[in-house]
Amino acid sequence: MNSPFTLTAQSTTHRARSGLLKTAHGVIKTPIFMPVGTLGTVKALTPEELTTLGSQIILGNTYHLYLRPGCEVIDRFKGLHRFMHWSGPILTDSGGFQVFSLAKLAKISDEGYAFQSHIDGSSHLFTPEKAVAIQDRLNSDIHMCLDQCLPYPSDRAQTLRALDLTQRWAARCHAYWQDETDQRNLLFGIVQGGMFADLRELAAQQMAEVDFPGFAIGGLSVGEPKPLMLEMAEATLPLLPADKPRYVMGVGTPEDLVELTAMGADMFDCVMPSRNARNGQLFTRFGTLNISNARHREDENPIDADCGCYTCQHYSRAYLRHLYANRELLAYRLNTTHNLFYYLELMATMRTAIDSDTFDQFYSDFYSQRT
Amino acid sequence: MNSPFTLTAQSTTHRARSGLLKTAHGVIKTPIFMPVGTLGTVKALTPEELTTLGSQIILGNTYHLYLRPGCEVIDRFKGLHRFMHWSGPILTDSGGFQVFSLAKLAKISDEGYAFQSHIDGSSHLFTPEKAVAIQDRLNSDIHMCLDQCLPYPSDRAQTLRALDLTQRWAARCHAYWQDETDQRNLLFGIVQGGMFADLRELAAQQMAEVDFPGFAIGGLSVGEPKPLMLEMAEATLPLLPADKPRYVMGVGTPEDLVELTAMGADMFDCVMPSRNARNGQLFTRFGTLNISNARHREDENPIDADCGCYTCQHYSRAYLRHLYANRELLAYRLNTTHNLFYYLELMATMRTAIDSDTFDQFYSDFYSQRT
Repeated sequence: MNSPFTLTAQSTTHRARSGLLKTAHGVIKTPIFMPVGTLGTVKALTPEELTTLGSQIILGNTYHLYLRPGCEVIDRFKGLHRFMHWSGPILTDSGGFQVFSLAKLAKISDEGYAFQSHIDGSSHLFTPEKAVAIQDRLNSDIHMCLDQCLPYPSDRAQTLRALDLTQRWAARCHAYWQDETDQRNLLFGIVQGGMFADLRELAAQQMAEVDFPGFAIGGLSVGEPKPLMLEMAEATLPLLPADKPRYVMGVGTPEDLVELTAMGADMFDCVMPSRNARNGQLFTRFGTLNISNARHREDENPIDADCGCYTCQHYSRAYLRHLYANRELLAYRLNTTHNLFYYLELMATMRTAIDSDTFDQFYSDFYSQRT
Repeated sequence: MNSPFTLTAQSTTHRARSGLLKTAHGVIKTPIFMPVGTLGTVKALTPEELTTLGSQIILGNTYHLYLRPGCEVIDRFKGLHRFMHWSGPILTDSGGFQVFSLAKLAKISDEGYAFQSHIDGSSHLFTPEKAVAIQDRLNSDIHMCLDQCLPYPSDRAQTLRALDLTQRWAARCHAYWQDETDQRNLLFGIVQGGMFADLRELAAQQMAEVDFPGFAIGGLSVGEPKPLMLEMAEATLPLLPADKPRYVMGVGTPEDLVELTAMGADMFDCVMPSRNARNGQLFTRFGTLNISNARHREDENPIDADCGCYTCQHYSRAYLRHLYANRELLAYRLNTTHNLFYYLELMATMRTAIDSDTFDQFYSDFYSQRT
């Protein structure tokens, strides 16, 4: 089939590039950040607000949605889109990471993950085939292969075994997707390899041999030092096919997004902007601020006077601090609105900079503003 | 001064009437329900959403705002409106009810209420004069007199003593308002009298002698049986000046609003639609439903197919149940949106019925739909 991804621009000073990714529910402009909507809702916001903020695609979590509300409920709505009232593209993860981090008594074998629900202890099995099948029932526009996630640190032998399994599972996911679905929804392969650059390279080369519509880098931001994370991404990204989208999973800070975009990554997701918003940490051009800080008590200024988000247009730090101190529901909305706006605007700024080949200028401006 | 209240229509079959109440921040069409925004936020909603829902005026709580964020913070914004980004009218209560129900070691004397904050134990004194002064600092469009609230049941002697104090405090509140403020903001007297019809009548007659711009009935819905509540309102409402607005405080269910409007009440506030929304109870023309009920699990229908609210336009019971079961923040928004829409639309329907003198028809339709 024709590749759903088209490169539109390439920076001449960095490996940063922009592109268009065609999905069943619309075209995504890359590089892009994808807000996380674990249970079929980006916490505190409506789909209309996500669109206003510039969200082109959101994430859902297969493990969570499979357990709650369950596929049989979502089947009634022919997928996640109508269930949650979001008509744009959705990417779902495979569930592997949550089985590894949340489920009880998870046992891994060649067959797949056997585990017990962290909600009610019920027994389940995720095979590579089933992970794709569930995602197809959710009707997400982009499915992810089931992979084996490792804790940090893991030794080389352990990492190599996990990589081997991930690779074999990827082939099974791809075969199921090709034979049992209409391929309207895309399937991405995931490159693992732990914190070993040579294993990352091996994984990238092997994975690139399978004809996936896109590739992801998994297993980063799992507790390793920041320079190591960037080193692993650097070892992997150049080896992934240039004509396909590259998605760095679960990353990261604004600086991470800038560095990884500069390396040629196209897609990101992270709970950081939304989760930190709910903990009172707000992102700005100058760095982060904690709204619960007493110095904001009587401050009539917005979070950032130059920010165009709804929160900064209408509310002071004093009011936001008051809401947050009293755990008012509006606090979570206004904080999340600001943080996602910041993340999504950062990505839009990078896209513009790439398209006009001024990424170099963007890059130095970005760092010069931060205090 | 000219009365800020104008009667616009009077039902010929009931005592229900419609009117216009002019405040410093706009004209309110009565009868009206006022959503409660205790801490300077109607929980989970933005001011723009409140306007879309048809809120003409909202409530703030003096006791809560005085303690958090404190008057000195709100002074920076010259009042509550700019602090909370709401440009319409605001009514504040006097704080007396919260001192009575929340504060620690509250002691009542002729002077006022001495109490300790339920937050940090700090000591405070609310005199009648101070209650008005605080409300003027908040710059609410309608202030309420400080009154003595009683638990249910209270005996006749106790009720009479409280009534006497409330009456003397009302005179002091009125004197302070007249002498120390520019009277741009209105001050309402509160009729008490417990559950004794003759004391309610006495209180109404005495209070009506003071030239307040409006009158409220307090001390209802404090645990008494429903028929007794309506009996007390019935004993009071006809004795209040017909040319001034009548506000029944802290009431109530949809049926209560219909009954009290039929008796000639003009204004209501209650946490019920918003609080119950956060507990999963949703109001409809047919009665209430609990969204957590298992029978909604796969239900593709909205709460009420004929409801015009954002929630009913876009979301199924199955999705609302899923959000609520997982305590997702969006659940509180969508449920609150629906319940407040229902309450505000009910009031709008009554206004229209009064204006077209079809309140009788409205009244029978209202009850015939309920199951």
